[in-house]
Amino acid sequence: MIPKPLKKLIFELSKLPSIGERSAFRIAYHLIGRPVAEVRALSQAMIDAVDTLTWCRFCCGLSDKPVCDICLDARRDNSQLCIVERPSDIFSLERSGAYRGLYHVLHGVWSPLRGVTPEHLTIDKLVMRFDELKRAKDEPLSLEIAEVILATSTTVEGDATALYIAKELDAFGVTISRLAQGLPKGGELEYADEVTLGLSFEGRRRV
Amino acid sequence: MIPKPLKKLIFELSKLPSIGERSAFRIAYHLIGRPVAEVRALSQAMIDAVDTLTWCRFCCGLSDKPVCDICLDARRDNSQLCIVERPSDIFSLERSGAYRGLYHVLHGVWSPLRGVTPEHLTIDKLVMRFDELKRAKDEPLSLEIAEVILATSTTVEGDATALYIAKELDAFGVTISRLAQGLPKGGELEYADEVTLGLSFEGRRRV
Repeated sequence: MIPKPLKKLIFELSKLPSIGERSAFRIAYHLIGRPVAEVRALSQAMIDAVDTLTWCRFCCGLSDKPVCDICLDARRDNSQLCIVERPSDIFSLERSGAYRGLYHVLHGVWSPLRGVTPEHLTIDKLVMRFDELKRAKDEPLSLEIAEVILATSTTVEGDATALYIAKELDAFGVTISRLAQGLPKGGELEYADEVTLGLSFEGRRRV
Repeated sequence: MIPKPLKKLIFELSKLPSIGERSAFRIAYHLIGRPVAEVRALSQAMIDAVDTLTWCRFCCGLSDKPVCDICLDARRDNSQLCIVERPSDIFSLERSGAYRGLYHVLHGVWSPLRGVTPEHLTIDKLVMRFDELKRAKDEPLSLEIAEVILATSTTVEGDATALYIAKELDAFGVTISRLAQGLPKGGELEYADEVTLGLSFEGRRRV
């Protein structure tokens, strides 16, 4: 009863993350009501993105060139390397303006329950970056990492991944740190969970 | 700093209903990680949908033919006509299985605040359907409407639209009804608002 092209569109839209059947319906109707040019623009943007975007050869982040803008940027602090789970995490951290160093994207977390082992992540590439450093300096910036900042999620899986990486990098003699955990800005004690409260005590700082 | 093709894709995705910047980001990353064939399939499904889908000549619902399957279906009850706001409402009602008649889609509600007047809706087409009926019978089914069921939303705007249509169709001497309002199935009195409770009293039925 639903016209075939509509059914097909809803089916394809439902594959997207956080889009259920109802949202897919809504989006499909929206698209059908839009000017053809607008739908073509969206469709083309998708094709262009998959066709041109690739993973940066160094940091494994998203880029439309073999090496991304951040890795190529000579003004970045090349003594710090921040390890994140997803390419989008880079943009979140960049927006905060709190960090001016380089990045490395893991493309996931160690999650035995979902069948993700460290081999599925880009940890080997990370170790290779350090190995290369010891030999020659073919990094776009003459990377001389003094500190590795582990910015994986504060979940059990993120913590396990961070620990694993810390062990892997142990031999290279760099400082390894983890992002602070505690109360979020604007957070009230009343609404904070016990673990967070515990961590905020543990990590308390002199004022 | 964000690669251009990604920026463009996020921009285009953000135009979709109920997709904010954060969801657009997530969807964009998802797409970039998918096989090219899958992204092409979605992109093609969009183009196909806008290219082939059109509004049914009679009911103004969605169809890939000039006249939709429901209007063409000889097994439908051609004495009932149900007026809905959106094409998707047809599918919701069909899924309920409670109705076997024909439909008419308004493509909106009368909403002065948003600048939508009855002229923006398909009310003229609806009246034309009745006008035609009086003269000849060129409807795919020899439409002999005995009852018009107003199934617009139970909002102020939906109610106003229903009233307006009831007045417009007054001259044609058909029974005009409105979907029942009251407690939803599984609803508890405790959580029902006062207006709904009032309506459920007003519309109470003998058991």
